[in-house]
Amino acid sequence: MNILITGAAGMVGRKLTEELVRRGEIGGRALTGLTLIDIVPPIVPDGVPGAALSVDMADPAAAQALIEQRPDVIFHLAAIVSGEAEADFEKGYGVNLDGTLALLRAVAAQPDYCPRFVFTSSIAVFGAPLPDPIPDDHTPEPLTSYGTQKAMGELMVNDLSRRGLIDGISLRFPTICIRPGKPNAAASGFFSGILREPLNGQEAILPVPDDVKHWHASPRAAVAFLIQAAEMDLTPMGPRRALSLPGVAATVGEQIAALERVAGPEAVALIRREPDETIMRIVEGWPRSFDPARARKLGFEAEPDMDTIIRVYIEDELDGRLPVQQG
Amino acid sequence: MNILITGAAGMVGRKLTEELVRRGEIGGRALTGLTLIDIVPPIVPDGVPGAALSVDMADPAAAQALIEQRPDVIFHLAAIVSGEAEADFEKGYGVNLDGTLALLRAVAAQPDYCPRFVFTSSIAVFGAPLPDPIPDDHTPEPLTSYGTQKAMGELMVNDLSRRGLIDGISLRFPTICIRPGKPNAAASGFFSGILREPLNGQEAILPVPDDVKHWHASPRAAVAFLIQAAEMDLTPMGPRRALSLPGVAATVGEQIAALERVAGPEAVALIRREPDETIMRIVEGWPRSFDPARARKLGFEAEPDMDTIIRVYIEDELDGRLPVQQG
Repeated sequence: MNILITGAAGMVGRKLTEELVRRGEIGGRALTGLTLIDIVPPIVPDGVPGAALSVDMADPAAAQALIEQRPDVIFHLAAIVSGEAEADFEKGYGVNLDGTLALLRAVAAQPDYCPRFVFTSSIAVFGAPLPDPIPDDHTPEPLTSYGTQKAMGELMVNDLSRRGLIDGISLRFPTICIRPGKPNAAASGFFSGILREPLNGQEAILPVPDDVKHWHASPRAAVAFLIQAAEMDLTPMGPRRALSLPGVAATVGEQIAALERVAGPEAVALIRREPDETIMRIVEGWPRSFDPARARKLGFEAEPDMDTIIRVYIEDELDGRLPVQQG
Repeated sequence: MNILITGAAGMVGRKLTEELVRRGEIGGRALTGLTLIDIVPPIVPDGVPGAALSVDMADPAAAQALIEQRPDVIFHLAAIVSGEAEADFEKGYGVNLDGTLALLRAVAAQPDYCPRFVFTSSIAVFGAPLPDPIPDDHTPEPLTSYGTQKAMGELMVNDLSRRGLIDGISLRFPTICIRPGKPNAAASGFFSGILREPLNGQEAILPVPDDVKHWHASPRAAVAFLIQAAEMDLTPMGPRRALSLPGVAATVGEQIAALERVAGPEAVALIRREPDETIMRIVEGWPRSFDPARARKLGFEAEPDMDTIIRVYIEDELDGRLPVQQG
């Protein structure tokens, strides 16, 4: 199996690459080639013949070159994140819309070629007011350019799948928690930060009240979603190929309680409450939880609870050990 | 007011142009210029300074030129119809998606410019299975490329309106009935044909059973929708700018009964039943009726019944007279 991953240098892209190489197969067929694409060249792990290319998805010529080797599976993860797509109109539409449409159309234009196309969409396709939980048939009415671009991509994935030009699926990812690495400027960053920083013995800022509820899944679950989406028979989905995924619904208060159960009160003591009106207003319009009945029926599963999400982080990022607590 | 109409040589485009020139104003402000665009050059009526241009909306350079004079109102009607967009992938996506996105982005790129943008969408954004009636919050899940392209356009109209780059609205037109002119190859053609041909003393073919129900509005109502959409304050719509419009829900049997009331049994005798499995299958997945509560609240109204739709045709297309019946 020849595999193409766009956005391969990103956090999920790197973990997906590692897991694919570790398995050495997908859907029972051996991995024979891996093409990793990002704006910076991703690192190709040993074990599978691969190529890493630095590609700007917004470049109209890029898509054609990417599919010349006719990958069997395309994981299209490349995206400008929500905050940046909102701040930079042309960059967001250039990568998230033009890049996606160009890749889809390059595939569609190839005769006798119908690859599995796994598109990472987002719960940002939904905009307030939102029910809690959000059912599978809720209308995507995004209130960000990022969500709009993802919703447009979903529609085209559906249409090309219906026409038999791709065998596509769009996965509406929960917010990834606990995102490893340093704090970033994303408005959603604190959902990971209030767990990650204390687990690393550092102080974390909490900008919203404890009753803010959100929808989470671990990086490990995200990779499992992607691989399952690449392997499964998509026929039962019919022409509707966009899927809200399972996750863990938790309030900030429930996140903190889980942190205390897993890492003790010393960890919780590192969270400093510093209300931020701007972040509160942004987060207010976000999904709180989903009823992803369709995805569950198709066999997708996230972690059972926030405690598990925290343990996954400790296992995957801290070698199973908590750092020595200070104080 | 400087006005741009794309697709101006089409049936609705011509009627809209005529009505605008007849009024000489829009929203209480005088018409000062009219630019009419189509793949064939439209005819510019007397009375308003205007230009007719032959433009291929799929040409990436087209959009920029169209908005150089900064029209106050843009009626974007240009489209490849459903059947052709399904048959010719590149042509459909080229005009219906690329053309629409290029026009929207050209407007968005202009500093200090926020025109009224009236986008003609379609009830084809909805795909089976469908409730009857279809509520305003039903999820667009199109089952044609045409419907997909329209749904994608709606999303971008919403996003650019939210960002204050356009003041946009998307109108999901009912099927236009009675469409004047000759029979065409559209799968929906018979909805008009079974009324239009008998009203002109000619035989009509009915390919579906009498209980097939569909959603109709006259060309006159379509023009009124467009003008209202150009004149009204869109602020009450918030960021959700796509609107399912009022129409007349009628079964084929009810259409025929209305024809008999208006034009007598001689007219009905001209309808020949010739079942067509292909057309029946296509039509089966179409919307039957809507509950367009939002549009009604905003003041949009279609004809009250099929009898009125037929009378509108007789007034507007037959100078108010039925031809002498034969037999």
